[in-house]
Amino acid sequence: MNKVATFGEIMLRLSTERHLRFIQAKSFAASYGGGEFNVAVSLANYGIKTDFITKVPENDIGACAVKEMRKLKVGLSNIVYGGDRLGIYYLETGAGTRGSKVIYDRANSALATTKSGDFDWNDILKDATWFHWSGITPAISDNAAEQCLLAVQTAHKLGLKISCDLNYRSKLWKYGKAPHEVMPKLLEYSHIILGDIDTAYLMLGENKVNPNYEDEKSLPKLYERIFNACPNLQLIATTLRYSISASHQRIGGLLFNGKKIYNAAVKEVTPVVDRVGSGDAFMGGLIYGLLKYDKDFQKALDFAVAACCLKHTISGDYNLATIEEIEKMIQGDASGKVSR
Amino acid sequence: MNKVATFGEIMLRLSTERHLRFIQAKSFAASYGGGEFNVAVSLANYGIKTDFITKVPENDIGACAVKEMRKLKVGLSNIVYGGDRLGIYYLETGAGTRGSKVIYDRANSALATTKSGDFDWNDILKDATWFHWSGITPAISDNAAEQCLLAVQTAHKLGLKISCDLNYRSKLWKYGKAPHEVMPKLLEYSHIILGDIDTAYLMLGENKVNPNYEDEKSLPKLYERIFNACPNLQLIATTLRYSISASHQRIGGLLFNGKKIYNAAVKEVTPVVDRVGSGDAFMGGLIYGLLKYDKDFQKALDFAVAACCLKHTISGDYNLATIEEIEKMIQGDASGKVSR
Amino acid sequence: MNKVATFGEIMLRLSTERHLRFIQAKSFAASYGGGEFNVAVSLANYGIKTDFITKVPENDIGACAVKEMRKLKVGLSNIVYGGDRLGIYYLETGAGTRGSKVIYDRANSALATTKSGDFDWNDILKDATWFHWSGITPAISDNAAEQCLLAVQTAHKLGLKISCDLNYRSKLWKYGKAPHEVMPKLLEYSHIILGDIDTAYLMLGENKVNPNYEDEKSLPKLYERIFNACPNLQLIATTLRYSISASHQRIGGLLFNGKKIYNAAVKEVTPVVDRVGSGDAFMGGLIYGLLKYDKDFQKALDFAVAACCLKHTISGDYNLATIEEIEKMIQGDASGKVSR
Amino acid sequence: MNKVATFGEIMLRLSTERHLRFIQAKSFAASYGGGEFNVAVSLANYGIKTDFITKVPENDIGACAVKEMRKLKVGLSNIVYGGDRLGIYYLETGAGTRGSKVIYDRANSALATTKSGDFDWNDILKDATWFHWSGITPAISDNAAEQCLLAVQTAHKLGLKISCDLNYRSKLWKYGKAPHEVMPKLLEYSHIILGDIDTAYLMLGENKVNPNYEDEKSLPKLYERIFNACPNLQLIATTLRYSISASHQRIGGLLFNGKKIYNAAVKEVTPVVDRVGSGDAFMGGLIYGLLKYDKDFQKALDFAVAACCLKHTISGDYNLATIEEIEKMIQGDASGKVSR
Amino acid sequence: MNKVATFGEIMLRLSTERHLRFIQAKSFAASYGGGEFNVAVSLANYGIKTDFITKVPENDIGACAVKEMRKLKVGLSNIVYGGDRLGIYYLETGAGTRGSKVIYDRANSALATTKSGDFDWNDILKDATWFHWSGITPAISDNAAEQCLLAVQTAHKLGLKISCDLNYRSKLWKYGKAPHEVMPKLLEYSHIILGDIDTAYLMLGENKVNPNYEDEKSLPKLYERIFNACPNLQLIATTLRYSISASHQRIGGLLFNGKKIYNAAVKEVTPVVDRVGSGDAFMGGLIYGLLKYDKDFQKALDFAVAACCLKHTISGDYNLATIEEIEKMIQGDASGKVSR
Amino acid sequence: MNKVATFGEIMLRLSTERHLRFIQAKSFAASYGGGEFNVAVSLANYGIKTDFITKVPENDIGACAVKEMRKLKVGLSNIVYGGDRLGIYYLETGAGTRGSKVIYDRANSALATTKSGDFDWNDILKDATWFHWSGITPAISDNAAEQCLLAVQTAHKLGLKISCDLNYRSKLWKYGKAPHEVMPKLLEYSHIILGDIDTAYLMLGENKVNPNYEDEKSLPKLYERIFNACPNLQLIATTLRYSISASHQRIGGLLFNGKKIYNAAVKEVTPVVDRVGSGDAFMGGLIYGLLKYDKDFQKALDFAVAACCLKHTISGDYNLATIEEIEKMIQGDASGKVSR
Repeated sequence: MNKVATFGEIMLRLSTERHLRFIQAKSFAASYGGGEFNVAVSLANYGIKTDFITKVPENDIGACAVKEMRKLKVGLSNIVYGGDRLGIYYLETGAGTRGSKVIYDRANSALATTKSGDFDWNDILKDATWFHWSGITPAISDNAAEQCLLAVQTAHKLGLKISCDLNYRSKLWKYGKAPHEVMPKLLEYSHIILGDIDTAYLMLGENKVNPNYEDEKSLPKLYERIFNACPNLQLIATTLRYSISASHQRIGGLLFNGKKIYNAAVKEVTPVVDRVGSGDAFMGGLIYGLLKYDKDFQKALDFAVAACCLKHTISGDYNLATIEEIEKMIQGDASGKVSR
Repeated sequence: MNKVATFGEIMLRLSTERHLRFIQAKSFAASYGGGEFNVAVSLANYGIKTDFITKVPENDIGACAVKEMRKLKVGLSNIVYGGDRLGIYYLETGAGTRGSKVIYDRANSALATTKSGDFDWNDILKDATWFHWSGITPAISDNAAEQCLLAVQTAHKLGLKISCDLNYRSKLWKYGKAPHEVMPKLLEYSHIILGDIDTAYLMLGENKVNPNYEDEKSLPKLYERIFNACPNLQLIATTLRYSISASHQRIGGLLFNGKKIYNAAVKEVTPVVDRVGSGDAFMGGLIYGLLKYDKDFQKALDFAVAACCLKHTISGDYNLATIEEIEKMIQGDASGKVSR
Repeated sequence: MNKVATFGEIMLRLSTERHLRFIQAKSFAASYGGGEFNVAVSLANYGIKTDFITKVPENDIGACAVKEMRKLKVGLSNIVYGGDRLGIYYLETGAGTRGSKVIYDRANSALATTKSGDFDWNDILKDATWFHWSGITPAISDNAAEQCLLAVQTAHKLGLKISCDLNYRSKLWKYGKAPHEVMPKLLEYSHIILGDIDTAYLMLGENKVNPNYEDEKSLPKLYERIFNACPNLQLIATTLRYSISASHQRIGGLLFNGKKIYNAAVKEVTPVVDRVGSGDAFMGGLIYGLLKYDKDFQKALDFAVAACCLKHTISGDYNLATIEEIEKMIQGDASGKVSR
Repeated sequence: MNKVATFGEIMLRLSTERHLRFIQAKSFAASYGGGEFNVAVSLANYGIKTDFITKVPENDIGACAVKEMRKLKVGLSNIVYGGDRLGIYYLETGAGTRGSKVIYDRANSALATTKSGDFDWNDILKDATWFHWSGITPAISDNAAEQCLLAVQTAHKLGLKISCDLNYRSKLWKYGKAPHEVMPKLLEYSHIILGDIDTAYLMLGENKVNPNYEDEKSLPKLYERIFNACPNLQLIATTLRYSISASHQRIGGLLFNGKKIYNAAVKEVTPVVDRVGSGDAFMGGLIYGLLKYDKDFQKALDFAVAACCLKHTISGDYNLATIEEIEKMIQGDASGKVSR
Repeated sequence: MNKVATFGEIMLRLSTERHLRFIQAKSFAASYGGGEFNVAVSLANYGIKTDFITKVPENDIGACAVKEMRKLKVGLSNIVYGGDRLGIYYLETGAGTRGSKVIYDRANSALATTKSGDFDWNDILKDATWFHWSGITPAISDNAAEQCLLAVQTAHKLGLKISCDLNYRSKLWKYGKAPHEVMPKLLEYSHIILGDIDTAYLMLGENKVNPNYEDEKSLPKLYERIFNACPNLQLIATTLRYSISASHQRIGGLLFNGKKIYNAAVKEVTPVVDRVGSGDAFMGGLIYGLLKYDKDFQKALDFAVAACCLKHTISGDYNLATIEEIEKMIQGDASGKVSR
Repeated sequence: MNKVATFGEIMLRLSTERHLRFIQAKSFAASYGGGEFNVAVSLANYGIKTDFITKVPENDIGACAVKEMRKLKVGLSNIVYGGDRLGIYYLETGAGTRGSKVIYDRANSALATTKSGDFDWNDILKDATWFHWSGITPAISDNAAEQCLLAVQTAHKLGLKISCDLNYRSKLWKYGKAPHEVMPKLLEYSHIILGDIDTAYLMLGENKVNPNYEDEKSLPKLYERIFNACPNLQLIATTLRYSISASHQRIGGLLFNGKKIYNAAVKEVTPVVDRVGSGDAFMGGLIYGLLKYDKDFQKALDFAVAACCLKHTISGDYNLATIEEIEKMIQGDASGKVSR
């Protein structure tokens, strides 16, 4: 049986309600999320066994985060307790031409201050078949990057499938190292990468090329350079997102397996209830699709794109759409009829 | 003066707010509704004298439903008190590609367990000029179907105009009878039917024909078979609904009086605030239109379609749009300008 | 340094939430607003020194309004305390084809019952460089109109730039005088007018002409008649608003400086979070644009139109969009991307 | 069958929630109330036929007030529509040592500006058996006082039982007349008065005597002077209220029928959920008690005191306690056990 | 290691907020609870391994209940899925002299309609060391009573410790059998009973004796009759509750082990935040106390009483007080100091 | 004219509502507070000119804190912008026997990471007449302690009156120094100290003495040791707090001016709406009292105690009670009557 281990941070998310600006808010909706955690929730929701590896403080806020994980059936047997605080991000929900705003307050979080020995990776990963990480963890702190490298190396040694969402956040990477100093040795072990070409190039220390995703024939050559830099890479996927407004998105996706470009039809997403975490929903859908459909990459990609679309209709960081809802959407039913 | 009697169930509606999924909700908005009740509210709101005939339990939840009726000026002198519970339905409000979900918990409700003698139909209908029922009531239980038949027969005997909204719900009809075993003898007495052709066929025990409503010339023949099965039928109307997404609908309508097809222009409805009860708003608008415009079927149909559209902008089960708002819309003003 | 003095009323705004109709509301969101106040907030938000001149009652509701002003950094050193009540307006928020509704309850407000001597205009305006008023204040009461005239005359005498938003509200003007009996002598002193041509004509006592704003060449002649009636007029601007529905607007703008028509590209605004005060956001943006860009009227107009658009995405009466957000929009980025 | 007609104002009540001060509130709970209306609700709730006579504006806020009345089964066939606004009162809910605050904004309300001819008292009162008014209505405006006098005189002529709650509010009485110039001729016709001795003296133009309600023997002489001034008076009742804090009250009551003092045991009321309207709950309980128990004054008084106590546990202006709950309390059960 | 299996129903609890009456509520807070479930939550919260055995419907409402269990770390591996509905109870929260009201709507719930074979008790209980049930389950339906008996018999056979909370609810027991026809054979196997003497007598078919719990010496004889009727009984505990008002309770407890009466000091509980489930908190505390302190009955009883007291300060059905908080209270610190 | 400068941290306060535990909360009420800030708000509220000196980050959360200050009329011309984050504290509101819980997340806040040169104390304090600080600031970090010392020394040099609230928080002081290593040199310059004797002793490095505040005669000797250690000390005040429960407090106060003990009558505070910040309300009241009543220490103390009591009835960190309300309370009126 498959078991997907993911490593990353879980944060308290404090968001304004009803499209209020920060300055108007007298309360914040409190929920929990984070890129890698959101992937774990997607997978748990699809019935996949998961293990979310993180560090949370030993106080009531940390306990709340853990209770949320348990509720969502995310595996929590490898959580480390300690550190001073749970990271926070504030979210102001935009609308129309006004985009959402995120303020990070995650410095010195429990995970950012993780110490050597916090995680016994050989033991943690011994039962897992898949390891997922993202570019956020090595961007938090030197310590987090170090644990991420140990995790990836151990996963490689134990023969796990390894996936990575590049997830570049320019507001992170503040601890003195640039992405290209850290990421290449991490990506070296990954079999599956989610990210757009220029992000991958940035992380590999190459120049921006502004790829034209509409010109499908031009892409294999660009993707191949990533394959060249990552010896274990088997496939790379890219979310295509056309932002008409904060309330209206068009979502498609590409997948290149080193030989062929797979392309998923672009779908209209309007109105957007909550856009945060939609990339994680794509990633979660892609892992599930690859587990389920194996080499049928078109099916895996379609599942990822539909999961991403449905996430936009759901409040909070993580995707609560069911397999049935996603499959109905893949089959072309986006009519949103009342089910009764 | 006209007085429209409607017979059916009033339920407690428990809906999630702000597009939350059930699993995210910590509270439910509580309101009251039900197909036939919603028609009564529309008519009371247009100034028509109404009488809503139902059975509610003698507890505070039943009392809340009755107080809601009184507030809305729905006639409540023929309510029967008894039974164990008020039926419930849970509503998860969708958005975009995620449709809304309804969970019924109406089995063993006060109306479903109505007993012979609960309603003295001769007395109840003695002052009414119109009787409205829908396909929901005979779908609840044998007892409810029996009362519905008695009601329709009495209404017929007393010379009332009789209308029916077919309202097929596949999740009901669980008590051992199929629609075609029950509905034909009820429809026999109806002068006005609201429903699409295949629903009528299903209820009359005929095969599905997938009518093409765009091909207006093909329709009279299809409608005529319903006329043939229902000796008292004078006109049949159909709501045309094109579901672009849960948040975007296109609404039109057809009416066939046995001779001619009347057609109302399709209107855009976006965003959808609350779709539930929009068919009942159509029905309420149609009854009002027929009472007001008599044989001017085009006007009656236009009123029904505009009422249906405006309902989508209003929270809750029933339509609170005013005659003035509906007429402004019929005259083409859908600009939603601020009235000040 | 510039200091913009604005004179007008601040009201308590009581609005229904989540698109509820008045009849459904069990609570009202409470905020504060008013045409001229909203302009002052826009300017304070852009870093311009402001002074809002008004009269509020000496009770806790008046104190709340003043605390809101202080929070927003609106100058409040010339507020007069007295009178019996703060004016109120109720707002029912529409959606789609159902427009919003405003009910005014502002008669006998502190400002409407202002007395001679309440405002020492020479002292109040001595440090200001710009005076802004709107057609709402003279519509409230004879006393308010009288103070408005004194203010405009003093501003003229002191050499201030004077701007006016015509802001015609047919539900006001109930105290026995028609606009054309009051407005001409007020407009006489204004250098800048915001309003559409027919509103200006109405206020000047001329007949409606239904201008065709698409036919740009036809406009100068029509605008010139306003210039003729207003000897100090330097420019007139008009908001172009195409109301697709209560939730979808298209916004553009025109500016005529006596010589040339300037035209700003029409922008899509959907969904509308809150439309009230969007005209005031235009006015605030125009004053700021004229202060900043001086004679570059195109830039001033573009700023006003973009400010107006962004206001639609913000709850409440006044615009909280920042200069950066507005400039990003002028440069064509309406994609509403998440800022993180 | 008894039918109690009450005449007075219904207002919109805007209250802060969760003990917030005005300055902290971002929303107001919206409900409806008013001294005489609250009495009508109590009686309707006890199953007595009522008619509430008032004037409300023809707008949605007025309609909301009327729908609230209908919901509560208060008779509304003699409501007059017109005027400009519904009166408002703002309520800041205190706690412990911090008392609640009320701000009236009821000047120029529909009822305050009632005109001669608005009410056809002969017709209005023709079916009633009891007329109730309070000292608030004549305190609002000359016009309201005039209608109140006409009402009382007509009620007297038609032989109705007449009751009055003195309800002195020092913040009213602002239209140029003092209570003792208006009230004596109104009280002349009343059979039943609720109020404390000094309030009655103030209204009759006599000096304050600071009665000692603990010294029961001293009271008849003091009450008798009121009897002397009011030729039709049959009994006078007084609520005894010992305010320990805003959250803790002790409630008792006295009744003097010209011969004997009746005294109800003082009850503890803590915590106080909502104190506003508790006097009206006493009045409503007293009328009901007198209708039900006729000359058994002790029972009537006990009912009034218990109703008053229970009102303190209920949010909003009016009492929603049932007869069963009140009787249980009279029988000494104040244990607040869960009923299940 | 201990593992406590509990069998019973989990219901959706719909409660009014802020002391509103049902008739005032526009929304219900939605949570989950039930006597036996609440005991399981207490134990899980104290770190005891638990297994909650129940039946829930296969719909989103059932799924919500299960996710709540998982969040609270209640063991859910023996949940049976099926049936039509989750039982509901409505709660109106009282205050002061107005008690709370509960309306049950749990007929035909998934557990009430459980069928033979739903539960494989030998398998379910094979790892458990303790089985807890209550008098609610056999009161629901014949089927539920039958399963309860099978469970108790199996637990007995497997040598588990068996505890029962008598939990008499007069509104249940509607399926044709009286408690004394069902309970004796169930109680026969129980080692520990929680309940007052008259409830036990009622269930055993004996006459009421109105025990005087203040007269400690009179009690052993009364308790002994219960011992005589229940051959396996080892101890019986009774919660002493003095209801000053809905907001003020005094809580104590007694325990009789067949030889000696243990008595816990009465504690003041004011204000009461939520009284529902406080008996279950006592039961949960008692089981924990017996597991932890073994034969030190005084300590076990003290723990149960303190847990019960703290539950009153916590919203919802189940106790979220921690061991540390309970122990601090036992040591006499009820000062409610801020922990910072 | 007096101007009181206070130096300290302003934090975002995230509190659960309606007595919910952290684990139950789906949203947090968001407000702003902090010991020294709360003192500044009290004083601004009493009409005293204030200047609050702090450091806040340049993001929207920092901007929200500043807008709150501006609204409350707290002087903000010496705020320094910079650093990474605003400190946070989470608050779980207790009830009855369950105390409130505070979780600090203020490490690495903007003020904690203040750098040399951030504050130009000579310039900042040049117009002030009074400087207030508390024991919280030196407990945050070395840097904050250093700035606090510079501030106190500059204030001393400039001849300002200096007051200090000892405010010992055991969860702070985590940066490697103990209070007695830091506080003595800060207290050396203070004229007024608020705190209990053992806290002062702890900060001065002396042993605990468990003073008996009931035995007034024993106190001067104990206070004198503090006078001995603090050469500039003129008076020391102590809040007396008897915690009956989280919902019921008794509040008194003592003041020793080196010669005489002043004692304020103990007052009942029940129910407690919000206890946090009540010590700051005492301090704010004391400063105001000393400014207003000069050497009439009894009056100053009475004002402080009454302000502290009223704070308990107000939500949020700071006191919004007015001078009128406080004086009414000093005069013995704690009846909480409705003001209308």
